[in-house]
Amino acid sequence: MKESSNKPFQFQKTFEILSFQIDPSGKLRWAALADLLQEVAWKHADSREFGQVLFDKGFMWVLSRFDIQVHAMPSWGETIHIETAGRGINKLFALREFRVTDSSGTVLATAMSAWLLLDIKTKRPQRPSLVLPSELFETEPSDYAPPEKISVPEKGHTGKTFHVNHSDLDMNNHVNNVSYIRWIEDFCLEQGFTFDKISINYLNEALLGENIEILFSLDAQKMLVSGRSGERDVFTSWVEKLNG
Amino acid sequence: MKESSNKPFQFQKTFEILSFQIDPSGKLRWAALADLLQEVAWKHADSREFGQVLFDKGFMWVLSRFDIQVHAMPSWGETIHIETAGRGINKLFALREFRVTDSSGTVLATAMSAWLLLDIKTKRPQRPSLVLPSELFETEPSDYAPPEKISVPEKGHTGKTFHVNHSDLDMNNHVNNVSYIRWIEDFCLEQGFTFDKISINYLNEALLGENIEILFSLDAQKMLVSGRSGERDVFTSWVEKLNG
Repeated sequence: MKESSNKPFQFQKTFEILSFQIDPSGKLRWAALADLLQEVAWKHADSREFGQVLFDKGFMWVLSRFDIQVHAMPSWGETIHIETAGRGINKLFALREFRVTDSSGTVLATAMSAWLLLDIKTKRPQRPSLVLPSELFETEPSDYAPPEKISVPEKGHTGKTFHVNHSDLDMNNHVNNVSYIRWIEDFCLEQGFTFDKISINYLNEALLGENIEILFSLDAQKMLVSGRSGERDVFTSWVEKLNG
Repeated sequence: MKESSNKPFQFQKTFEILSFQIDPSGKLRWAALADLLQEVAWKHADSREFGQVLFDKGFMWVLSRFDIQVHAMPSWGETIHIETAGRGINKLFALREFRVTDSSGTVLATAMSAWLLLDIKTKRPQRPSLVLPSELFETEPSDYAPPEKISVPEKGHTGKTFHVNHSDLDMNNHVNNVSYIRWIEDFCLEQGFTFDKISINYLNEALLGENIEILFSLDAQKMLVSGRSGERDVFTSWVEKLNG
């Protein structure tokens, strides 16, 4: 992931950080940040008719890979700006970048995401260029690389288990992308492992009522955290401390 | 709980409903509504120096009873207004009322809450009149009744279990009041029981790492839902369908 982009962003939204988004250290939680990134992605897509309109036509966007790097988390009551832009198409991935800044313009966080366009009936990936505005998502080979593929560990320590509840379901009746990030965050904080970067690969959807078992292996600066339901790998991720 | 109050409200805040607050039916989740009510309570308290300032002086507000009645939940992208006011003191309870309206002024939800002021060291309740602005919270016997006491069922069916995770902790390192409401909502929706009113009594704090076992008994229109950790009763609640 590039540190920051030179190309202009295409859409932005401003948020006040609210009390329920804050952790005991007084800072925005990772899952709450991911909620806001997702809100901005949706609003951008809807503003140019490649969001809910596509869903109504039988397509859905599935988040496949997501890298989020945080320099500083905002506190309760702070105002932040989240910018986003399409960053071209890479094979079947549509790329979307985010940048989070505080009220003085300081960059708090950056993120890159890779999305697949699925036919809801067949579950087959479709070419994103079919539906995306070409002025927002260049169809030339993109200047931007998608987040990297992360291997699923063969072995690992067994951590805890998270149950998939009704509140994990989003408006399309799928487990929210952010739930997986909340599980990672909850698991890492329970281990006393604080971090600056999450890189997650979404592998298979978690389903309502399932128990997601966490596997992990840790070195000093980096933890490999993956989740599975029975024999099905659900996600895998690198969680890293930087500069430290 | 009165349907709506005749006395003026004292504080208000406006919110846009965001994608991550919505359930698969397209409406605001109960837990997300409770998040917003709590935000407004905190901001009101902080605006008059009976919020975080008191915490720094060794006191804390503990939500003891909370009744929320919903007429209609807003949808994604809607703007809502939440008003709140102190509604006097009843013995050791400080009462706070809420009213939620949409952009045309239609009342979407009403709520009444009863709060105890605890000395953080001794855990003993203090008289709220010691710290509350008397022009906001009348010390005369209040015109308003606190939410009712709910008995803890002796017996009940055992429902599911919820684990208390790090993301349940609020900025004061206590399990967020809203987590209990999320557990109730998750449990009821899993049972296929939709509802218009929640009345909850908070009994003992849930602690990080605990498993909260749900007990319930159901008749057609009303479900008694309580939570316990081992032998400790954590909450008890009535969840009701109205007009139906």
